[in-house]
Amino acid sequence: MKLTPSQIEQFDRDGYLFFPSLFSPAEVKPLIDAVPGLYAQRRPENVRERTGDVVRTNFAAHLYSVPFAKLARHPRMVKPIEQIFGEKLYMHQFKINGKAAFDGDVWQWHQDYGTWKNDDFMPEPRAMNVAIFLDEVNEFNGPLMFIPGSHKLGVLDAEHDTTTTSYPLWTINHETIAKLVARGGIVAPKGPPGSMILFHGCLVHASTSNLSPWNRVAVYLSLCAVSNHIRRYKRPGYIAHRDFTPIECLPDDCLTKDYDVPLPWKDGTPADELRGLEKAA
Amino acid sequence: MKLTPSQIEQFDRDGYLFFPSLFSPAEVKPLIDAVPGLYAQRRPENVRERTGDVVRTNFAAHLYSVPFAKLARHPRMVKPIEQIFGEKLYMHQFKINGKAAFDGDVWQWHQDYGTWKNDDFMPEPRAMNVAIFLDEVNEFNGPLMFIPGSHKLGVLDAEHDTTTTSYPLWTINHETIAKLVARGGIVAPKGPPGSMILFHGCLVHASTSNLSPWNRVAVYLSLCAVSNHIRRYKRPGYIAHRDFTPIECLPDDCLTKDYDVPLPWKDGTPADELRGLEKAA
Repeated sequence: MKLTPSQIEQFDRDGYLFFPSLFSPAEVKPLIDAVPGLYAQRRPENVRERTGDVVRTNFAAHLYSVPFAKLARHPRMVKPIEQIFGEKLYMHQFKINGKAAFDGDVWQWHQDYGTWKNDDFMPEPRAMNVAIFLDEVNEFNGPLMFIPGSHKLGVLDAEHDTTTTSYPLWTINHETIAKLVARGGIVAPKGPPGSMILFHGCLVHASTSNLSPWNRVAVYLSLCAVSNHIRRYKRPGYIAHRDFTPIECLPDDCLTKDYDVPLPWKDGTPADELRGLEKAA
Repeated sequence: MKLTPSQIEQFDRDGYLFFPSLFSPAEVKPLIDAVPGLYAQRRPENVRERTGDVVRTNFAAHLYSVPFAKLARHPRMVKPIEQIFGEKLYMHQFKINGKAAFDGDVWQWHQDYGTWKNDDFMPEPRAMNVAIFLDEVNEFNGPLMFIPGSHKLGVLDAEHDTTTTSYPLWTINHETIAKLVARGGIVAPKGPPGSMILFHGCLVHASTSNLSPWNRVAVYLSLCAVSNHIRRYKRPGYIAHRDFTPIECLPDDCLTKDYDVPLPWKDGTPADELRGLEKAA
């Protein structure tokens, strides 16, 4: 899979690219089947919602789950991003966001690179966000909303919101959002399970709560250019990874065939990865 | 304005009717212009959101605001409902819901008639809900969501939810919602300011939070068949009205021309209307 010049131009202008049904139902099935088992685990990688005992986000499943370890090495995801950055990548962050039916709470307007820069000392926004839908995304189950073109402004001022949801977030103020939307509008890509979105680390995004009876599980990855690796380990290693080994892709059929993948955290998370460290990279 | 037989059949089947752009921009303007002044007032009729100082809902504006007093008597709204119920109507409830940009919170899944029956002792679901959009409603500013056909099941079991938002509500459990949606799906009518929805008192509905920079102010009225008036005054009179005088319509041009309307609460709300009363009707 290679991006066309017009796709690269579109990414540069809008800050995202949408690939409906990039993965087939047969490829998505082992992923979605693995989610309940991951969410049921009592490990620090599961962050729960304010209400109920429902998982809001799970971290680092690619280090302890075979299907997700294979997804993390999939060429249909990795190759286009290597093409855009012109170098090899490592996995900076790996999340499975629940946005559960009825209980899935909002994610306020934010940019991801603001956090990577301020908390992790990532030098440049040379890391790509990837969203892969494991459930259908429709207008009722809290789709991801983007402000097209908002990545062009670089890092915007943000405030640390620790009260609105169960997950602290650097959020952007209302006045700035109103200006950005007046210029670029709002879009919310929707599609079947297996669809993929690539979006710029500076693209402003949010999602509403999910009041529908339909789960909206999606995998959110951040793949960083190796030379652009983070310089500080303030956040736990299961949130902002410290292993900068370049990703080597598996074959294109890896989600439906057996391949050997390492599962270093299968028996638990190393103590050092559970906390911030003073040590710089 | 008279409903056609196919509209009446559609209302019976789906539980709602949508009339995009029923009122012109010139007719909507005096209404939308009056909202900030109403929301700014420190009177008990303004219920504010959990967050900020933003109004979630304003009650009974037709008793102290000229434009809304005229809207409450508009033939394009009143006549179709008289046609469906076959008798004259009185105003049971009159709300202007803010659903403010950024701060507008969710309304959980509920039926209105459950409250009217349990709290107000309204004998039958012979009261019609009306939503009139004062702002454009789009997919991003928290549109009203309906489960078509859900009114056919009558009054469903509900629990009194006093914690999720700033407004206590009799809400329907997740299992029931999932079943209803599997049968009827979800719809969310969207359209320009001046659009109107009529919906059955038993139709299950909800709306998500509004993270967009666009306000979504809408007027929500409940018009009750006079013979079906409430029998108990447990809720304050500004929430559930105790005046069962039949509505007399103004001419069709009433929103853009001057007409005399009574404003009985112009100088404040009568003390008896601020509280529940033991007295039955």
